[in-house]
Amino acid sequence: MNYNQRSAVSTVPNASPIKVGFIGLAVNKGWAYKAHYPSILQLSSQYEITALYNNNVESSLETIQQLKLSKATAYPTLESFSSSVNINMIVVSIQTSNHYDVIIPLLEYSRNNPNLKYLFVEWALACSIQQVETIYRAATERGLQTIISLQGRKSPYILRAKELITQGYIGDINSIEIAANGGWYGYERLAKSPSFIYQLGNGVDLVTTTFAHTIDILQYITSSYFSRINSMIFNNIPEQEVLGEHGKRTGKKVKKTVPDHLLFQGSLVKGNVPVSCSFKGGKPTKKFTKNLVIDIHGTKGDIKLEGDAGFAEISNLVLYYSGIKDDEPQSQNGVAMFDSSKELIEVYHLRNYNAVLGNIYRLYQSIADFHFNTKNIHNLSPKFIMQGFEFEGFPTFMDALILHRLIDSVNKSSALGSTIDVTNICQYP
Amino acid sequence: MNYNQRSAVSTVPNASPIKVGFIGLAVNKGWAYKAHYPSILQLSSQYEITALYNNNVESSLETIQQLKLSKATAYPTLESFSSSVNINMIVVSIQTSNHYDVIIPLLEYSRNNPNLKYLFVEWALACSIQQVETIYRAATERGLQTIISLQGRKSPYILRAKELITQGYIGDINSIEIAANGGWYGYERLAKSPSFIYQLGNGVDLVTTTFAHTIDILQYITSSYFSRINSMIFNNIPEQEVLGEHGKRTGKKVKKTVPDHLLFQGSLVKGNVPVSCSFKGGKPTKKFTKNLVIDIHGTKGDIKLEGDAGFAEISNLVLYYSGIKDDEPQSQNGVAMFDSSKELIEVYHLRNYNAVLGNIYRLYQSIADFHFNTKNIHNLSPKFIMQGFEFEGFPTFMDALILHRLIDSVNKSSALGSTIDVTNICQYP
Repeated sequence: MNYNQRSAVSTVPNASPIKVGFIGLAVNKGWAYKAHYPSILQLSSQYEITALYNNNVESSLETIQQLKLSKATAYPTLESFSSSVNINMIVVSIQTSNHYDVIIPLLEYSRNNPNLKYLFVEWALACSIQQVETIYRAATERGLQTIISLQGRKSPYILRAKELITQGYIGDINSIEIAANGGWYGYERLAKSPSFIYQLGNGVDLVTTTFAHTIDILQYITSSYFSRINSMIFNNIPEQEVLGEHGKRTGKKVKKTVPDHLLFQGSLVKGNVPVSCSFKGGKPTKKFTKNLVIDIHGTKGDIKLEGDAGFAEISNLVLYYSGIKDDEPQSQNGVAMFDSSKELIEVYHLRNYNAVLGNIYRLYQSIADFHFNTKNIHNLSPKFIMQGFEFEGFPTFMDALILHRLIDSVNKSSALGSTIDVTNICQYP
Repeated sequence: MNYNQRSAVSTVPNASPIKVGFIGLAVNKGWAYKAHYPSILQLSSQYEITALYNNNVESSLETIQQLKLSKATAYPTLESFSSSVNINMIVVSIQTSNHYDVIIPLLEYSRNNPNLKYLFVEWALACSIQQVETIYRAATERGLQTIISLQGRKSPYILRAKELITQGYIGDINSIEIAANGGWYGYERLAKSPSFIYQLGNGVDLVTTTFAHTIDILQYITSSYFSRINSMIFNNIPEQEVLGEHGKRTGKKVKKTVPDHLLFQGSLVKGNVPVSCSFKGGKPTKKFTKNLVIDIHGTKGDIKLEGDAGFAEISNLVLYYSGIKDDEPQSQNGVAMFDSSKELIEVYHLRNYNAVLGNIYRLYQSIADFHFNTKNIHNLSPKFIMQGFEFEGFPTFMDALILHRLIDSVNKSSALGSTIDVTNICQYP
């Protein structure tokens, strides 16, 4: 089956690989090391790491040595890194709260760098809609091709769900329910867990992370933005108990300012479909419900996506489908019928799929497909403004900006106690 | 196990049975015949049917004859019926849209009837908050003991869930999700189906019936009203296709004005618990989800209630419980632990439970317990103002009024596009 409408094996390009400069790659720790580095290793014909920048150059030098990055240089300053002609793509994979202060100068320093073409930044891009707007404008002015790691769009399960819906396998969408449980916003935290993830304003909270990734996935699957939304944000667990090594109780309580619950409901632009969502922290409740459940009910079939963790973009999932294809006749001799012999059932699960790595890998693959025009698309545009709901391509800063507008509306709806019309947030400028 | 804290077998009272006058009991048709009549048959020591009133007296006479109601009289007029001294309890079981026009004169006609003590009316009591307010005041002034058929409160599954929560089996409630699917608000309707159930204003729509019964059950289980709510009401299926005998397509389309979807979210007064609800019509989606799912997540356990139909008050359910009781220690030698040997699992299901009949039967049983003081409660009040969240007793017009205020807020929230504070709707006057 052609699950994601892309080549199963990327062809090796007959050209130089994309030279990647990393901000935030350090050996043995962090997301860049866990997800980006192995993705690039697996795409060694398409990418090579040529530059590293970290807060201290020793960390970069050690990383180069230990990872045997023979082509890479450790740059001592952001300026020297950003202006290096030996970089085609900069990847920013540091704490979101530092993004703004790095990206704005980076864009300035790189102004006269002729070889820099791509800027790939981790979601959430920045911590507020204002910062995101500024970054978006600066990057657009600089003329870079942007990429944002809304990597859930590259999950094979998400692509399969999108394909089933697009091809009419569930008819029209009737309604959607989502329930996601993100463990760490709950009653306890580990002492070794970094405290910034529990502090509001750092761009890694329940709304900015769990909700945004999941709702982006839903919009992508359904090929629709929202028309109106209402939300309620809760911080019902203002203090967490600190657990030491091996879950040892310390008796210590610490403040938590990030929310632990988000109720979100609204309707899609397309079909006015009602969507009901509940995102929460606290004890994972695995007895009778999975930590992630996305139920999509159509007039001719249903799709259910389930995962063990409430983070669809980094979880291995299971997709269940049951339905009848749109073009099957719904009546015979004038009698409405449900011909069960026409009913299709599918359970789609890649047993060993590593979603943490796999979705980021597929994102890099898409960028390479674009760069090398792997699919020989005639008149391929040199710039890819936004992905929107296309199967091909990758999400850009514009996709990120639109999603941040939704986050902003979610915050406003909760604060003001009102239902908000968001029909126009996908329009630009 | 003592599932519902009431006597398993009602004692036979050493007193005359309650004399019941029915408005709307007709042989072989309707809800009174299906649910009320067999309930009374099974409680023949506590109740006897002594009077019938229907639009035409022939129907009453035929019913008396065929059901062999030897003690019953067919009254030709509402006035003669209401003033009959041979009635202790009047049961009104007709279309909700006719309630107001029957109940208001009934209360007037019965003003000097010394033997009439009980007035038992089917939910939704009336079609609007204004009508309900008027009926409530008139019945209170008349001094009758009122009963409303919010019979979901008598479901053994609901009582068991309430008991588990009250006794600390799931700790504090963290969050709740409800999804209910009511088939008939969907894309098709049977030609023989009465058209009033598809017309707004008749008190039998998705909000007034499906939502109200279910949310009443939820409030009852959790012993809490809501503090704030937001809702969105949809009529995405303004036309239904008419199906004839054996599902034959007629090609005819008819108007539907009742909603087919309701999104509802809010927080409970108790614990500020987030509640996410989705009620919908359309094709039943039985492949991956039940038509009724109530998920209650606590800090120490979970309860899941499931049913095949989206109507909790008339469905046989299954209750799943898993958790650790509140008073079990959560740490040992200072180490946080989850002692799985202390974990309880329960699946509660009465295989042959007829919920249509059973919940109404249990409601009659509660009224009889009150009337005959079956449980020998010292100083039992002669009037039972409201049930609220008590295990004992039965819901009254005041419970109905409070629920109608919530319905009214749901309609307002959707129409105004705002989140509404409902903290005070349970306060009276």
